Amino acid sequence: MKRVVFTFFGLMAVVSLFSQWTPEQTEWYSPVPQKVTPGSKPGAPPSDAIILFDGKNLDQWMSGKDEPAKWQVVNGEMRVVPGTGEIKTKAFFGDCQLHIEFKSPAPENYHGQNRGNSGIILQCTYEVQVLDADNNPTYVNGMVGSIYKQSAPLANAYTKNGEWQVYDIYWKAPVFGSKGLESPAMITVVLNGILVQNNFILKGNTPYIGLPEYRAHGRLPLMLQDHGTAVAFRNIWIRDL
Amino acid sequence: MKRVVFTFFGLMAVVSLFSQWTPEQTEWYSPVPQKVTPGSKPGAPPSDAIILFDGKNLDQWMSGKDEPAKWQVVNGEMRVVPGTGEIKTKAFFGDCQLHIEFKSPAPENYHGQNRGNSGIILQCTYEVQVLDADNNPTYVNGMVGSIYKQSAPLANAYTKNGEWQVYDIYWKAPVFGSKGLESPAMITVVLNGILVQNNFILKGNTPYIGLPEYRAHGRLPLMLQDHGTAVAFRNIWIRDL
Amino acid sequence: MKRVVFTFFGLMAVVSLFSQWTPEQTEWYSPVPQKVTPGSKPGAPPSDAIILFDGKNLDQWMSGKDEPAKWQVVNGEMRVVPGTGEIKTKAFFGDCQLHIEFKSPAPENYHGQNRGNSGIILQCTYEVQVLDADNNPTYVNGMVGSIYKQSAPLANAYTKNGEWQVYDIYWKAPVFGSKGLESPAMITVVLNGILVQNNFILKGNTPYIGLPEYRAHGRLPLMLQDHGTAVAFRNIWIRDL
Amino acid sequence: MKRVVFTFFGLMAVVSLFSQWTPEQTEWYSPVPQKVTPGSKPGAPPSDAIILFDGKNLDQWMSGKDEPAKWQVVNGEMRVVPGTGEIKTKAFFGDCQLHIEFKSPAPENYHGQNRGNSGIILQCTYEVQVLDADNNPTYVNGMVGSIYKQSAPLANAYTKNGEWQVYDIYWKAPVFGSKGLESPAMITVVLNGILVQNNFILKGNTPYIGLPEYRAHGRLPLMLQDHGTAVAFRNIWIRDL
Repeated sequence: MKRVVFTFFGLMAVVSLFSQWTPEQTEWYSPVPQKVTPGSKPGAPPSDAIILFDGKNLDQWMSGKDEPAKWQVVNGEMRVVPGTGEIKTKAFFGDCQLHIEFKSPAPENYHGQNRGNSGIILQCTYEVQVLDADNNPTYVNGMVGSIYKQSAPLANAYTKNGEWQVYDIYWKAPVFGSKGLESPAMITVVLNGILVQNNFILKGNTPYIGLPEYRAHGRLPLMLQDHGTAVAFRNIWIRDL
Repeated sequence: MKRVVFTFFGLMAVVSLFSQWTPEQTEWYSPVPQKVTPGSKPGAPPSDAIILFDGKNLDQWMSGKDEPAKWQVVNGEMRVVPGTGEIKTKAFFGDCQLHIEFKSPAPENYHGQNRGNSGIILQCTYEVQVLDADNNPTYVNGMVGSIYKQSAPLANAYTKNGEWQVYDIYWKAPVFGSKGLESPAMITVVLNGILVQNNFILKGNTPYIGLPEYRAHGRLPLMLQDHGTAVAFRNIWIRDL
Repeated sequence: MKRVVFTFFGLMAVVSLFSQWTPEQTEWYSPVPQKVTPGSKPGAPPSDAIILFDGKNLDQWMSGKDEPAKWQVVNGEMRVVPGTGEIKTKAFFGDCQLHIEFKSPAPENYHGQNRGNSGIILQCTYEVQVLDADNNPTYVNGMVGSIYKQSAPLANAYTKNGEWQVYDIYWKAPVFGSKGLESPAMITVVLNGILVQNNFILKGNTPYIGLPEYRAHGRLPLMLQDHGTAVAFRNIWIRDL
Repeated sequence: MKRVVFTFFGLMAVVSLFSQWTPEQTEWYSPVPQKVTPGSKPGAPPSDAIILFDGKNLDQWMSGKDEPAKWQVVNGEMRVVPGTGEIKTKAFFGDCQLHIEFKSPAPENYHGQNRGNSGIILQCTYEVQVLDADNNPTYVNGMVGSIYKQSAPLANAYTKNGEWQVYDIYWKAPVFGSKGLESPAMITVVLNGILVQNNFILKGNTPYIGLPEYRAHGRLPLMLQDHGTAVAFRNIWIRDL
């Protein structure tokens, strides 16, 4: 009997606590977010950004095989040298904000996936597609703005071949524990100021063949794909969150 | 018997086909995303944006009580007139991309939540905080860039009192069914080009007192809060997704 | 204190708003469905249809072994050449609307499954039966209009041997994720204007022996079966949804 | 010990049964689907159809208040007489195939939901929208071809104001048991030969305000809505499945 009473009053206590909420109970004072100064103009790196490419050299990059990066730096751009393979950052990243601009080479006679194809591969695993979309039909979950083979873009925000395209990518890395996936990767992608992926929850990695799946990993480099076309990149910076 | 064998081998053929994924199986061709043209410069509305305020009038707005909006339009800005109450769009929105710029009034002797306080209330329910953060300490889940009382910003991206602050908000509306919440609201918020909310899954609405919870609703107006200070807004546009 | 009261009443306003559904909350404006123009007469392809056979050639088809299709085109019909094996479309499909007409060859002395047998195999996996049903008893889940060995037709809508039979098939492809089936295949089948499969949820694939089961796959070709009889087809078109 | 052995052999029995499947085990012979003769031309009623309107009278209909139907029969059409209220069939239906043609009145100065609005309300509960879609923007889940406020059409298949529009509707009624919903309603809708709802699983009924929900019911009449505009109908037939 005593125990029942105890439980009964315990319950009452909880109930009365609920009815006694004050505003202060839901106000938190730490940690205090760090002051970050915006870039000098739209697209310029904020004060805490890591500059991955500012037009001068590939010092932040190496090849996918851990050798020196073999892409070309010309006129302040870095360009894929087809056949030299992908490049990746020396640094590793998890959650991040990435700014990157790209320009497709002249289309010549290439079409679909063969025209201006490259990729921004977050954590060496999850690909945001880079492709020319100027009168270049292809499968919609493989066009520019897609999470490759997972999610078509909400809009075709590409402008014209030969013009710089601006990607702003907001990446929430997946979290793995000893029992597997604890929270999935999430991404928001803005292309030329237009939302193309809206808080999208990824289904897994980016296979060319078959279905995406998650395999546990931690922080990993950012990778840029060599898909056989001389795509150019510039103004690449990242905020490590 | 012959027929059975024939069919049996036919069956075998189908089975082996299953174990052979090909790239084409994960390539989708419809629906084709619509072409949207970027704004003429960063922050300018893309071709499909709905202009909510371009400096001229409050035609897209009304008061929270469905009366004419009583805020002031001066010098191409719209300003809270303290005491006239919140305003909301005449149109209703669900998923959206929102661009909005604000400027805090002179601080005078106000501090904390009393200085430059307003709010961007998505679907009349979920508040992204507007507050002066120029030497103005307050609880971190109530500072500018926060999802009010739910999530502190990743950074303090505010510049200076008197300067225009630029919000880009990417909103995935919650989905409700007859049995309650089917998928939660998600938000990514960028302030002055700096990520402050990274694919954040909301816990519910925005109570001042107590814990957030979800209550079913559909599309609802965008609301701007009157919290007693003459915050100014400009260049407000939204894309209805 | 004043501020608390102010906020408190603001909160109250929001709460009452929740309990007030308005019609606009459940009205969506995007994406806008594309305009599609109906065919010139019943059975003719709508404006966005892919013509799979218009009486002229087998350009849209190949053999099940990825070789040229060996069926015959005669008098604007395409006919199974028994022993040459099934044919499949070069294109891959998921959700689709399929129109296809067929004609059984003269019955001669064949009966049951040996008379006019062919099949429309969606995604190379799920068979809608083709069979002569003019005085030709067989197991009902193997007659014309059946999902072979899964679901007998609601009616025998076949007319006469030697007459063209018209199938309209509405197909919702199964969806697979890394953990297996996420949503099953669904089909609605109309034969000669008569509903024979009513929003049927498939149990899996189409084995000749044993029970149907699902095995993960993506988009796959449409296949037509060679079951040893010279069934004719015409006017085949599909809408890729 | 004995029991373990027993279970073990029981398991073996099941296993061996699986490996002994023969084709005949999955071939069913009853019930034999009834022979139904197709209509004389596309759109004409099959032999077992119940003619709900053939241009002559409203004998199959009554008002929503169980009084005589007050709509007009003119030139072989039946027309909504605005203000007289909805009409419903005297007969009750569950699963069915419905053919119905409608024509919007001249648009005059009406727009959106006020132009050519009516509705086909299956089982007096689930509405397939009727609306003019000839240059008549409205919310997409309220346009012609929608399951009203639940599912936008896959395409805009409407032709022109003043032309007859042809609906073919395939309806799987919801099933309710003592514990509530056992299987949901499903629908496939074809407008002018174009698929607009693809094996769609309904979320519930059709409220104008708020979210759909299921409430148990059995067979019920087919209802046509009076929404204040003189929409015309013709060639209405139904197959009771």
